[in-house]
Amino acid sequence: MKQTNKQNSALHNKEGKSISNSVSAKSAARIKKLRKKKVSAEELLQAILKGNKPALSRAITLIESQQQNHAKDVSTLIEGCLPHANKSIRIGITGVPGVGKSTFIEAFGNYLIQQGKKVAVLAVDPTSSISHGSILGDKTRMEELVKQENAFIRPTASGDSLGGVAKKTRESIILCEAAGFDTILIETVGVGQSETVVHSMTDFFLLLKLAGAGDELQGIKRGIMEMADAIIINKADGENERPAKKAKAEFKKALHLYPTRQSEWIPKVKLCSALYNSGIEPIWKMIENYRKITQENDYFYHNRHEQNKFWLLQTINEQLKSNFYNQPTIKTELKKQLQLIEENKTTPFEAATYLLKLAKEL
Amino acid sequence: MKQTNKQNSALHNKEGKSISNSVSAKSAARIKKLRKKKVSAEELLQAILKGNKPALSRAITLIESQQQNHAKDVSTLIEGCLPHANKSIRIGITGVPGVGKSTFIEAFGNYLIQQGKKVAVLAVDPTSSISHGSILGDKTRMEELVKQENAFIRPTASGDSLGGVAKKTRESIILCEAAGFDTILIETVGVGQSETVVHSMTDFFLLLKLAGAGDELQGIKRGIMEMADAIIINKADGENERPAKKAKAEFKKALHLYPTRQSEWIPKVKLCSALYNSGIEPIWKMIENYRKITQENDYFYHNRHEQNKFWLLQTINEQLKSNFYNQPTIKTELKKQLQLIEENKTTPFEAATYLLKLAKEL
Repeated sequence: MKQTNKQNSALHNKEGKSISNSVSAKSAARIKKLRKKKVSAEELLQAILKGNKPALSRAITLIESQQQNHAKDVSTLIEGCLPHANKSIRIGITGVPGVGKSTFIEAFGNYLIQQGKKVAVLAVDPTSSISHGSILGDKTRMEELVKQENAFIRPTASGDSLGGVAKKTRESIILCEAAGFDTILIETVGVGQSETVVHSMTDFFLLLKLAGAGDELQGIKRGIMEMADAIIINKADGENERPAKKAKAEFKKALHLYPTRQSEWIPKVKLCSALYNSGIEPIWKMIENYRKITQENDYFYHNRHEQNKFWLLQTINEQLKSNFYNQPTIKTELKKQLQLIEENKTTPFEAATYLLKLAKEL
Repeated sequence: MKQTNKQNSALHNKEGKSISNSVSAKSAARIKKLRKKKVSAEELLQAILKGNKPALSRAITLIESQQQNHAKDVSTLIEGCLPHANKSIRIGITGVPGVGKSTFIEAFGNYLIQQGKKVAVLAVDPTSSISHGSILGDKTRMEELVKQENAFIRPTASGDSLGGVAKKTRESIILCEAAGFDTILIETVGVGQSETVVHSMTDFFLLLKLAGAGDELQGIKRGIMEMADAIIINKADGENERPAKKAKAEFKKALHLYPTRQSEWIPKVKLCSALYNSGIEPIWKMIENYRKITQENDYFYHNRHEQNKFWLLQTINEQLKSNFYNQPTIKTELKKQLQLIEENKTTPFEAATYLLKLAKEL
């Protein structure tokens, strides 16, 4: 949508005078199409493979656009990037608001760049469609990292279903990897099912926590502990250091209660203070160790295969829905059926049967 | 599947000798079909409308069977029941394991029956597919209620996606209502998204809690408090009475922090001891009051319309998936593609594209 507006205003500003309204819609569409072609998907792809960040950014915008006429370009991009993808380590990072995720990513990302890594930061934020904000929208919170040549930070796509956001994020990972980013950080806030989604697309899952006052084991969503490969207790500085150490011991005890994992990895608990840049290196060493162990015992690859199977089904399901709901007749008729439900003149079952039958005949 | 086995064994036992293997598959299928026809969907429907519980049970089994050849019968049943449905109050009940949901439903259900109500108990339990158990599987926990003529208790359908379980539960509600049950209790355990699903099909949502030791506001999943129309503090008896009263005050305070609801209903906090049958009547009076208020201000109907719209989309989405994955060619080819992913010979995107294209050509 943004692109269209820009083109309109460019048209209007051309040679200082506005174009008459009599310009037919057809020729306007032709002009638009020509302009859009200016950078083809193939050219974009080549630029991405060279590590061009503006091209990467533009390609992700294309992925995020829900327009059907971009579908072919998106395919070209993904198919072209796939052979160059999969060579990174993908790290999921979660934690409740206020735990210091942005500060942690700033510190951790800068450390990784010092180690010669290329770091991409993506986010899955299902709440952004409601709050009209986004986790990474406030870029100033990562002001050092954002300036780095070897960092790529992308705010969340907003206004979408979790399934849709997930698909886009997964495709964005592929593109980032093809652009040479070898460490992908995927941030999420602990809402609904978003952690599960991020867990299903990452190799290593970090849960950020704060030391509380004796309630360390409370308030953790069921299942999150089981997903975490490591718990990082952030803000372990100053007065917080003692309670953080206590919390570490408690978490360690709690993690011991879970059965051994298929990965043979025993989840770790680490202290850190992202603000004071302390405890960052041990976290990276731990992740490198995890990669070594799980690549040796093959779990790393097995896990990615399982994730791929899951994403095959997800991709199909999303596509089935998008094929159905994007048909103009269905769009019109769905609106009518929703109105009939509002007026008590039909039931969800009748309406669904009617629309499905209609689609079959199209 | 069960039915098929039974028929086979009946065939084998006929006249004390086993039937030869030469009975053609075709004629066996014909016999099966004849036996299945013995009670037609139309007959089942008439029995349900007369309030026949075994017929209701059998119809729900039909809904739960995922067999495509039952789809037409299921439609007949639902379409036939719909004009007689919608006249009940639907109450969702959630709470962590151990909070006493079964004991509460036993006490609450028996009270309702004494008031002349007809009570159906259903359950949404997405974990049952993993644990191979089910919330209501252990029927002895409701031994009084289960004996009542005016009670219908149905254990959860197992082994399915949450979406699938939700659809079946919603359809079961319609059938129960058509069979004359005027109070529908839908139980769920607080796992994943199941509360959201139950909330989306009920008029009133009860959250059961226990009085803890100062951590009353911890451990509550985000969003649950916002969904609850009432919090019931169970096991408020003996030594527990004082902490329960304290907890009540704290919950009341917490609930005050939420903005006013569209329903204009202010969520209540009540104490009860399901085991000692105390505090049950005020809960029902509260729900009756809720119904009165929201029927007067129209929210009750508005909410059901919104739920119907949601279920229209859910029904379509489930049907799109079921249409796709139930095609024999897709079943075979999907298996092959999953194997190729396992062997690293394709990607989820390529495989999805291939399968979607294949389905188009079928």
